[in-house]
Amino acid sequence: MGPALVDLRRILLGRRLTSGEGEQAKVGNVVGLAVFSSDALSSVAYATQEIMASLATALPASAGAAAVAVAIHPLFGLSGPVALAIVALLWILGVSYRQTILAYPMGGGAYTVAKENLGEGAALVAGASLLVDYVLTVATSVSSGVAAITAAFPPLHGHNVALTLSAIAFVAMANLRGIRESGTLFAIPTYGFIALMLALLATGFLKWFLGGGGAPVAGLPSAPSAPGAFGPLHGFVLVWIFMRAFSAGCTALTGVEAISNGVQAFRDPPERNASRTLTWMLLLLGVLFLGITLLARHFGVVYAHSPDPSVVGETLLSKLARAVYGDISHGPPRLVYFLTQAFTFAILVVAANTAYADFPRLAALMGRDGYLPKQFAFQGDRLVFSNGILILTLIAGLLAWVLHANTDLLLPLYALGVFTGFTISQAGMVRHWYLARKAQPAWKPKAAVNGVGALASGIVMVDIILARFIHGAWIVAVLIPALVVLFRGIRRHYRRVEASLAASRSEPASPTRHHALVLVSNVHHGVIQALQYGRLIAGDRVEAIVVDPGGDANHEGPGMAALRSDWAIYGMGLPLRRIPSPFRKIVEPILAEVDRFRIGEPGVCLTVILPELVTRRWWQQFLHNHMALRVRTALADRPGVIVTSVRVHLPT
Amino acid sequence: MGPALVDLRRILLGRRLTSGEGEQAKVGNVVGLAVFSSDALSSVAYATQEIMASLATALPASAGAAAVAVAIHPLFGLSGPVALAIVALLWILGVSYRQTILAYPMGGGAYTVAKENLGEGAALVAGASLLVDYVLTVATSVSSGVAAITAAFPPLHGHNVALTLSAIAFVAMANLRGIRESGTLFAIPTYGFIALMLALLATGFLKWFLGGGGAPVAGLPSAPSAPGAFGPLHGFVLVWIFMRAFSAGCTALTGVEAISNGVQAFRDPPERNASRTLTWMLLLLGVLFLGITLLARHFGVVYAHSPDPSVVGETLLSKLARAVYGDISHGPPRLVYFLTQAFTFAILVVAANTAYADFPRLAALMGRDGYLPKQFAFQGDRLVFSNGILILTLIAGLLAWVLHANTDLLLPLYALGVFTGFTISQAGMVRHWYLARKAQPAWKPKAAVNGVGALASGIVMVDIILARFIHGAWIVAVLIPALVVLFRGIRRHYRRVEASLAASRSEPASPTRHHALVLVSNVHHGVIQALQYGRLIAGDRVEAIVVDPGGDANHEGPGMAALRSDWAIYGMGLPLRRIPSPFRKIVEPILAEVDRFRIGEPGVCLTVILPELVTRRWWQQFLHNHMALRVRTALADRPGVIVTSVRVHLPT
Repeated sequence: MGPALVDLRRILLGRRLTSGEGEQAKVGNVVGLAVFSSDALSSVAYATQEIMASLATALPASAGAAAVAVAIHPLFGLSGPVALAIVALLWILGVSYRQTILAYPMGGGAYTVAKENLGEGAALVAGASLLVDYVLTVATSVSSGVAAITAAFPPLHGHNVALTLSAIAFVAMANLRGIRESGTLFAIPTYGFIALMLALLATGFLKWFLGGGGAPVAGLPSAPSAPGAFGPLHGFVLVWIFMRAFSAGCTALTGVEAISNGVQAFRDPPERNASRTLTWMLLLLGVLFLGITLLARHFGVVYAHSPDPSVVGETLLSKLARAVYGDISHGPPRLVYFLTQAFTFAILVVAANTAYADFPRLAALMGRDGYLPKQFAFQGDRLVFSNGILILTLIAGLLAWVLHANTDLLLPLYALGVFTGFTISQAGMVRHWYLARKAQPAWKPKAAVNGVGALASGIVMVDIILARFIHGAWIVAVLIPALVVLFRGIRRHYRRVEASLAASRSEPASPTRHHALVLVSNVHHGVIQALQYGRLIAGDRVEAIVVDPGGDANHEGPGMAALRSDWAIYGMGLPLRRIPSPFRKIVEPILAEVDRFRIGEPGVCLTVILPELVTRRWWQQFLHNHMALRVRTALADRPGVIVTSVRVHLPT
Repeated sequence: MGPALVDLRRILLGRRLTSGEGEQAKVGNVVGLAVFSSDALSSVAYATQEIMASLATALPASAGAAAVAVAIHPLFGLSGPVALAIVALLWILGVSYRQTILAYPMGGGAYTVAKENLGEGAALVAGASLLVDYVLTVATSVSSGVAAITAAFPPLHGHNVALTLSAIAFVAMANLRGIRESGTLFAIPTYGFIALMLALLATGFLKWFLGGGGAPVAGLPSAPSAPGAFGPLHGFVLVWIFMRAFSAGCTALTGVEAISNGVQAFRDPPERNASRTLTWMLLLLGVLFLGITLLARHFGVVYAHSPDPSVVGETLLSKLARAVYGDISHGPPRLVYFLTQAFTFAILVVAANTAYADFPRLAALMGRDGYLPKQFAFQGDRLVFSNGILILTLIAGLLAWVLHANTDLLLPLYALGVFTGFTISQAGMVRHWYLARKAQPAWKPKAAVNGVGALASGIVMVDIILARFIHGAWIVAVLIPALVVLFRGIRRHYRRVEASLAASRSEPASPTRHHALVLVSNVHHGVIQALQYGRLIAGDRVEAIVVDPGGDANHEGPGMAALRSDWAIYGMGLPLRRIPSPFRKIVEPILAEVDRFRIGEPGVCLTVILPELVTRRWWQQFLHNHMALRVRTALADRPGVIVTSVRVHLPT
């Protein structure tokens, strides 16, 4: 690597860190909330919108777009109960994960918990779910953030893909620098978003309280007083609509597990700090999600999927802010609206960062266990797992590009992986308490808490598969088992390699004699160096061979006479053997000669020495033929043959 | 190369030929006319058309497309005198080249003649002109042939690019098989085309004689009886129009030099046979070109450039055939028309073949002289210069693709290179006779003949530059000097390499001691093999080094303890040196260690031995890091250091 490139690396990534500096890269609770909770908190930017979109598809065809536009169809009233059910689920999961953190202070991701308590199969399913999910977190969050920006700035409309890819690249760069700097860099967006959301809720509920903004929405669907409002929708159909809206809203819960995966990143004592941060996060998430959903219902703000998937429409949060703040064409409302959009973008970018903290960590864990390439476990000179960061960037960018950076298309893929991970993790915790029942007499209440968590997540998982299968969940449902097969294949490969490389397998009867063949085309400086090297490593057991293109067994080809006269002067007295090649091939006769030698002297180690010309400029290589490379490649699979290039550097 | 691939090569390219089989690949006169004259003869398919198109652009705007369509504008009458002037030029060139053939029986291409008589500069300009020209021959001829097909088969209309690329690929394949088979394969199209053209002329002139088909074209523009017909065109304007039409028509003369380049391919005595073939070719070319031009004028068949360059219109030859044969919807005229189009296509493909015979030959000649990469001089196992064939195919295909396989765009680039070559070649012949004046007393008439040839070609060259500069000739006018600079650069590189590699430059003080460093990561089978190899080549001067990522000068990193205990068992008693790498880098510490060694023991040759794992399947390589490759690359520019991989083959 050239010095200029090194300088660029240092400017972009910061100075190198020794392994001992690892401790410094830990975070306090305030920064930790920003780093690990942004995924969960930022979900409110799309979860309510996704519930509304799900309900909109259930509208009778006659209601159509017009009804959506005026936002008064009573079906949207279902958003309230759906949101309440989700907050209840959030509470269950929160309590469950609090137990996980305390039980696994070293970081209790679903993969770790499953591996310890449920065995390899469940661990791999959890690992696959999480990896898929981190990729989706990046693609979805950044796409959603960019949608907030394009909603506020019409000139950017239609450039969602380019903006999304740029933002992903930015986050990747920040993470290649290392986590502590990332934390500091991203704390402001998270807290800014929280403040602006609380301001929105406060303004909205104040207006509601003062009697403003209400849209003529019908009562809750369960209210028997207004059954007619739903027209022909009854019984099972209503349950189905509710299930779909509920599974759509579960995207609000993505990221709840992030803290339990990253306990190790917290300052001492990590489990205490992580647990406290989790509580704050759940509280904030519940308030924001419920508040936004209720306000949207009250202010008649709804959302439906854009008919053209490559066009991203205005986000629900942007519509809600406009509805709450009123005229945003000037004055303070204008400023607050734009700040809301900007910080929505910012926290969603930070949310993507959560995945950048966790994906490489999990990939490294699985790499160390041999389920992923070991390269994922290497820490770069900034103490980050660079390979994981790069591959996450690549796949997430590809996904955002293919799906037009459109959350309408991305979100249906999202929650399934999350809840698969939740379910396995909580089931693992149940077994964890059972296994520890001797040491911990009061294990039953703890197991019960996690059991309820597992049951709830499992039901949601089934709900998501049922309700969103055809909309994209099938992709994840296919991908996770495929990944599990891949993990097992990788592991099997590593095991076989390990077995075959065992030091004890080496034959004690190693070759004791050594012979060198020097390849000669004509006599030049490089050939003489190769002959000298042959002398050094093989003493008097050196032989030169020359391929004679055009010659045959009886006649020497053109050029041989000149070569022989040069050899008499510079050949160091070594034997020169001519290999005729009537068909003018070069590589094949050498291969044949090597094979003859191996058959003739099986116990002797053979080194083939190739003089190789190295040009100073890249284009000059086209002026020389790469015989050394071709011979090396051709001889690659001959056991017991070592190919060595003696490189001669050419002048400019 | 796998056996299946070898089989495929043999099926496509035929059996291998020994160098001694070269003689058999020569051609007789009948086949020679087909191989070497098709370029010149096939020019009639586009030369008249190009004259007409040039005249059409001179029409007053008011005449416009309508006038072209009804084809009665008197300006088109100029085509007659233009064609006569070109036939006169053809005669001059023919006589000149006849002398070249007799003087250079070994093949007297412009490059050879110029090199021997005018020096390097002129030779390189000639070489560049010819190479450019061969590429244009392929692109233009095949595009024109495909246009003949799309004119006859409307469903193929618009697929010109795809058809052209396919045809080029076909010709390339035929040439990779070798020239003799190509000759046999391509004789039928050439003679078929000649027969059909003669039939067209006979029919046309018979109808003319019987008083049919005449279009109301005004007399020759020189006739003072009809000056008013040209409206405002007088004096210089008329001269300019004539010059442009003449330069356009000179495309008829491309390929005239082909025989003189390829004398060697004729059977003994080559110069006699080649000369005789040349006479026949000139006669045929003159008759066909003049006949077609006169008939087109009489039958009122004209041509203008298509307004959309990506759309190729009906060719003039197709229009003429329809005009001569009348109703082609059924019966014998229908058959003859389709045969005419088919054989026009066929001979133009054969014409491209001329370039395939000459481009690789010239590139090989220039490669041997060091002006082009030496790889062009290698003959493949079918005795053809495969590299030249491949590069010609690549560039010509690219050109046809970029210019929509449209002769309207290709032809303006064409004739300049040809006439540059003509001029240099004939000027070289003048000097040839002058230099040989002692041996050949009757040198003056011969020199005069070539002098007239040189003068005529030179005037045409200037005419082409003036008249076609903005239409594309500028590209060639820039490209030729650029190529000359490239040739000189290549030559300079080879000279420097030769000088620096001179065997006499080798220092007599070669290293007499040798040391081996074996790179160790952990103790496995491959490492043990590497240690054994080190022992073989360096005796007791072997040392193992291990990079300790995460460790520093005082503390060993994780894994070192396990390594040391394995080393005690399997280390063969060799010293193991730990290189701490606090920043977890692997390659850099090794480089530093090697540099320390080189500074500490400057007179000692160092071999770095790397155990390298070789996976059986390509995807498995992603599961291993390529430390051997990275270390090898990093050490590549260290003089006096030899890097050797000991390859260990992994199981599936």
